[in-house]
Amino acid sequence: MPIERDQTPVPGSRRPGGRTARTRAAVRDAVLTGLAEHGYPALTVEYVAEHSGVHKTTLYRRWGSLEGLVADALDLAGEDTWTPPDTGSLDGDLRALAHEVVDSFADPAAAAAPTAFVGAAFQSERAAGALRAFYAERFTRCEAVVERALARGEAPEGTDPGAVVRAVSAPLFLRLFVTREPLDGATADQAARTALAAVRAGAFVAPSTPGQEHADGT
Amino acid sequence: MPIERDQTPVPGSRRPGGRTARTRAAVRDAVLTGLAEHGYPALTVEYVAEHSGVHKTTLYRRWGSLEGLVADALDLAGEDTWTPPDTGSLDGDLRALAHEVVDSFADPAAAAAPTAFVGAAFQSERAAGALRAFYAERFTRCEAVVERALARGEAPEGTDPGAVVRAVSAPLFLRLFVTREPLDGATADQAARTALAAVRAGAFVAPSTPGQEHADGT
Repeated sequence: MPIERDQTPVPGSRRPGGRTARTRAAVRDAVLTGLAEHGYPALTVEYVAEHSGVHKTTLYRRWGSLEGLVADALDLAGEDTWTPPDTGSLDGDLRALAHEVVDSFADPAAAAAPTAFVGAAFQSERAAGALRAFYAERFTRCEAVVERALARGEAPEGTDPGAVVRAVSAPLFLRLFVTREPLDGATADQAARTALAAVRAGAFVAPSTPGQEHADGT
Repeated sequence: MPIERDQTPVPGSRRPGGRTARTRAAVRDAVLTGLAEHGYPALTVEYVAEHSGVHKTTLYRRWGSLEGLVADALDLAGEDTWTPPDTGSLDGDLRALAHEVVDSFADPAAAAAPTAFVGAAFQSERAAGALRAFYAERFTRCEAVVERALARGEAPEGTDPGAVVRAVSAPLFLRLFVTREPLDGATADQAARTALAAVRAGAFVAPSTPGQEHADGT
């Protein structure tokens, strides 16, 4: 699923194709390595130049700044082919989603770049915008899990898929990035169990507002 | 409720009382203002010296570094007298808690320092440790809400108070610090409704493990 690109391109951030697509990927790899090693904003354009083999003046011309480099690396990270688990049941899918988050952050080397992206958003408005777009698209993909559950009759009609998939991840990201508490399989199970119980109880169906319920299709 | 202080003091971070308590508060205020204005690590010891009226050499001698200053300001922030809402029902308390989070981050000026603390933890291990201690103590205070619900019979026996209060905050902090989505009253209501439904369904009672259920009080 392609990432939605509704942001106006900023100067120096045009997206090249062909040969320059390889350049972009090499630059992205250098940014990821640099973020994992040094974090943002300690990462420098010099570092990216050295590790990508792309000249510094080219980096500044195309990406404008370190912010532009980080934002583009995050855009590119969103262009993967990841799809959410499809185990055949909502219970199984929510558990698999939660365990995937826990597993992906259990390896410090694998966790370093995503963690640095989340951290960079505190320092840079452009990184924050790229992170917002990344997660919006990622959670949209996850909604398939709830759409299938709705089709199977496993969730009450009107259940908000976006709220459900956010509810599964939220306690895990809280521990990773705010309370800085450890994650384990039990934490993943707790997150999935909570979301599933709330789905079944209809807690993700928006309360009726006057003139909205039983209304129409507007 | 006093903050738990189980960390070994590091050199330069001894906690003064009396006249030096006022110094500590002045330094804390300068750190908060500086974090709100510049974020971490753009905040400098020079800035804190200028805005607190405490000489730079004193700051270095007592707090050791910018990291020490930020960690101590966070420790001091945890020494407030805040108590969680007590509305008489679990539903009311969880809603009030969620709305308190949303309201406290709705004002950009009020949100700046707490946001900078969360961001600083990505850059500094000491800030991360102070943040972990801050939230551990804060969520412990919140548990009173669930303890009261248990006493009133509003929650199934065995409900984990810490998991419940984290579940209420988690979707809000996810939006604030990870997905960077807006918060509003409806988001707060959704968070409270989800946690309440999961409590009622027994989702915060840890699944039985062999030899534990029906056991005892050990």
